[in-house]
Amino acid sequence: MSLIVMKFGGSSVGDADRMKRVAARIVDRQRQGNRCVVVVSAMGDTTDDLIDLSKQIVSGAPPAREMDMLLSTGEQVSMALLAMAIRELGESAVSYTGWQAGMITDPVHSKARITDIRPDRVIKSVEEGHIVIVAGFQGMTEDGQITTLGRGGSDTTAVALAAAIKADLCEIYTDVDGIYSTDPRVVKVARKLNEICYDEMLELANLGAAVLHPRAVEYAKHYQVPLVVRSSFSTNEGTYVKEEAVMEQGVVVKGIAYDKNVSRISILGVPEKVGQLAKVFSALAKEGIDVDIIVQSGVKDGAADFSFTVSSSDKDRAMEVIASIQSEIGFREAVSEVNLVKVSIVGAGMVSNPGVAATMFETISELGVSINMVSTSEIKMSCVIDADRLNDVVRALHTAYGLDTDVQAFVGGPAERR
Amino acid sequence: MSLIVMKFGGSSVGDADRMKRVAARIVDRQRQGNRCVVVVSAMGDTTDDLIDLSKQIVSGAPPAREMDMLLSTGEQVSMALLAMAIRELGESAVSYTGWQAGMITDPVHSKARITDIRPDRVIKSVEEGHIVIVAGFQGMTEDGQITTLGRGGSDTTAVALAAAIKADLCEIYTDVDGIYSTDPRVVKVARKLNEICYDEMLELANLGAAVLHPRAVEYAKHYQVPLVVRSSFSTNEGTYVKEEAVMEQGVVVKGIAYDKNVSRISILGVPEKVGQLAKVFSALAKEGIDVDIIVQSGVKDGAADFSFTVSSSDKDRAMEVIASIQSEIGFREAVSEVNLVKVSIVGAGMVSNPGVAATMFETISELGVSINMVSTSEIKMSCVIDADRLNDVVRALHTAYGLDTDVQAFVGGPAERR
Repeated sequence: MSLIVMKFGGSSVGDADRMKRVAARIVDRQRQGNRCVVVVSAMGDTTDDLIDLSKQIVSGAPPAREMDMLLSTGEQVSMALLAMAIRELGESAVSYTGWQAGMITDPVHSKARITDIRPDRVIKSVEEGHIVIVAGFQGMTEDGQITTLGRGGSDTTAVALAAAIKADLCEIYTDVDGIYSTDPRVVKVARKLNEICYDEMLELANLGAAVLHPRAVEYAKHYQVPLVVRSSFSTNEGTYVKEEAVMEQGVVVKGIAYDKNVSRISILGVPEKVGQLAKVFSALAKEGIDVDIIVQSGVKDGAADFSFTVSSSDKDRAMEVIASIQSEIGFREAVSEVNLVKVSIVGAGMVSNPGVAATMFETISELGVSINMVSTSEIKMSCVIDADRLNDVVRALHTAYGLDTDVQAFVGGPAERR
Repeated sequence: MSLIVMKFGGSSVGDADRMKRVAARIVDRQRQGNRCVVVVSAMGDTTDDLIDLSKQIVSGAPPAREMDMLLSTGEQVSMALLAMAIRELGESAVSYTGWQAGMITDPVHSKARITDIRPDRVIKSVEEGHIVIVAGFQGMTEDGQITTLGRGGSDTTAVALAAAIKADLCEIYTDVDGIYSTDPRVVKVARKLNEICYDEMLELANLGAAVLHPRAVEYAKHYQVPLVVRSSFSTNEGTYVKEEAVMEQGVVVKGIAYDKNVSRISILGVPEKVGQLAKVFSALAKEGIDVDIIVQSGVKDGAADFSFTVSSSDKDRAMEVIASIQSEIGFREAVSEVNLVKVSIVGAGMVSNPGVAATMFETISELGVSINMVSTSEIKMSCVIDADRLNDVVRALHTAYGLDTDVQAFVGGPAERR
């Protein structure tokens, strides 16, 4: 008898019929001889509807504490209805809010982090034979304030709870069949991966494959929680995410990811002085702006140029921050570029296969596409290129690394992110 | 500086604009130098919408525990939005769910009773200068389960909280101007009462004047909480409800109430034996059916007839219960009558004014209406009559007891009940 945590996102429980289908799925799993704990997100558009409601009341940014109070009702509605749907099928079910399930967080409203889990109530109910439903995305501070975990929060709830109750498996149900070698909407012959290791998944998650939230993957890696990502609409086997994935013969690169949300900022004519870069990046960090790839050119006439990428949504703010420190740094000018994308190849075997990087450069060059920036790590390599050739580049890389299959991939809707 | 509990029902916060108006009202009250604690119901139709959602999932009666989980989100949404609306006006506000506010109840889901209040968090926030918003209608068991209080629950939350924090006044804001001498929709010259005592209010509340829930009035009487019922849409003075209302010169009867939800059941030919009635009424009580007026005729040929009234909604079930014990009791037949109403006069001065009852009988008889049943208490007298003459009877009694004024009464919409 296995103890399984099952997580269902908002589109999986988007209406009463889907809710019933999810309930049937859970009941099946329980009747196969498992004990099930279910983490559920708010139904479909509920969160957006609640945000709209708050905008009718508040002109500026709403107070984060009250926003958490408001948004946490979304999961409470879906967990109660899901418990009812399960009981309707003849199994006993009981639902718990984040605070009832003992999800303790820090007090950073709207993006709280889980600091502790006290799952006594959940464990007791499981032992009594109930299917337990827990609201995703929410917790409580030590002080009794309701918090929410921010984007990807329900994935994190599921993984953290699985770790706390020592579940045998954490199943993330979503609207795609599993993790693919690349986006099936771009490459029709993308292949579903049977297994992937945490680090690879982390790179893919961070690189924009929006199936699993990076924070949840980090948590899973840290607590060694075996994960599987699978479809809530089919019974196909999903993709297992674990510490050591079996290396498939000849497959060094596991997947190809891309990120369209990339802008490049170049600071030109920076007087050569110790600590100049540090000043720039600490000013950006203070504003919560993450910097990704950084490239510095050689020094010429006592001044250097350097470039870095930020999320396009942060670009304007980043330019303001840089303008505000121009006199302090004394650089000549700062320019920004949009219409860029980052393409990455990911695979734990890359580090011991030196030909991998060369293949990437060759493949992109053969298409006549110039590479603007490059960044590498042990298990990934990223190139920033012009946006208009993205699809060609992804397809060519997919073929070059031997990832194509004959089977057309299942293409889901937009992935869920809560 | 007074400490005031203000309660707003669902229609007062039915949409964003009303929410903002209520916020302005609260901020005014605070800026007059008071400290305000606000109890709020779910917005407008929220509760009905949630019930509809559950009906799409569950075929029979939904599990009460999960229903409470579901419905309690309604107040959580409105309290968060109201706190935002108050902050938008420049005052500091903080919202608390029932469990956060320390509303402890028994574990009877969907109609829990408050057993204890631990308002430390509320008091601390008030002392720190915040306007505190508390979700009405909900609480938590000692065991950490979410409960709801059932109909009229938000009134009870407000009164109980006022008692617990030793508030100087509990203001119930509703969609009518106060308590009227009778229903202004029936008698245009109904007068708004300036004061009324708890017992009178209790009779009026129980008799169908749906402005204040009886349980809330009982609570207020028990803890001697001064109440005022007033309109959320006007600044008119409302009606004060307290222990000893000032007796107005010459006014013995304070108000005239009626209840259209009345059915009469008659059990005919009951063999005279000790304990027969007890058997009938304990069988009905076991099914949760409340019996109101009971009348027994004299015994003839060793058998008696008796009649009693029940809510029309309970009539069919009551007849089933009675049929099921026919052989045990050995009565001849049971018949039921609908199309009846109960008209009541209420006034604390009645007991020392013997002419009051005679005036009621005379007034009704002069209209050619027959009285089917009568029931009296120290402060009220009720007659069951045919439904079709109800309005004439109420108007005639209103005049007979000197309650008419020249001012046309404000007629609100249907009163709120949560």
